[in-house]
Amino acid sequence: MYKATIIIKRRKSILDPQGKAVEQGSKLLKIDDISEVRIGKFIELNIDTSSREKANEELDKLCNKLLANLNIEDYSFTLEEIK
Amino acid sequence: MYKATIIIKRRKSILDPQGKAVEQGSKLLKIDDISEVRIGKFIELNIDTSSREKANEELDKLCNKLLANLNIEDYSFTLEEIK
Repeated sequence: MYKATIIIKRRKSILDPQGKAVEQGSKLLKIDDISEVRIGKFIELNIDTSSREKANEELDKLCNKLLANLNIEDYSFTLEEIK
Repeated sequence: MYKATIIIKRRKSILDPQGKAVEQGSKLLKIDDISEVRIGKFIELNIDTSSREKANEELDKLCNKLLANLNIEDYSFTLEEIK
């Protein structure tokens, strides 16, 4: 069994409107020194296999076909073996 | 200047419908061994201050008032000094 942690981020070149909204919101809280806010996804899941190779393949498939929009986002993941 | 990385996760006790949807979606991709999918947020931002203490305070405020819903979510962050 593996625990996977996936991080999905917008590419630097792509505007992040949600991040801009947070930047503006921070000013309402009188916080004036925040910039470059980028909002991505942090996904955790378990994969019930004993093969790290299979887990890697499945995660690539999952990210490519379901989780990430590869036109504007990049993904990375780590795998940790658990009992 | 600091670069902050914030992770916001739903509490374990709170249902994650988006995660359930991913779990179901993975079955359509013929991936059958995925479970416990939890979808959170991964936020990066810069804070233009030389005081780590001030950066910490601002991040707490930002998470409490703007980024996290403390009824169902927990947050954590790390700070890294950059030039």
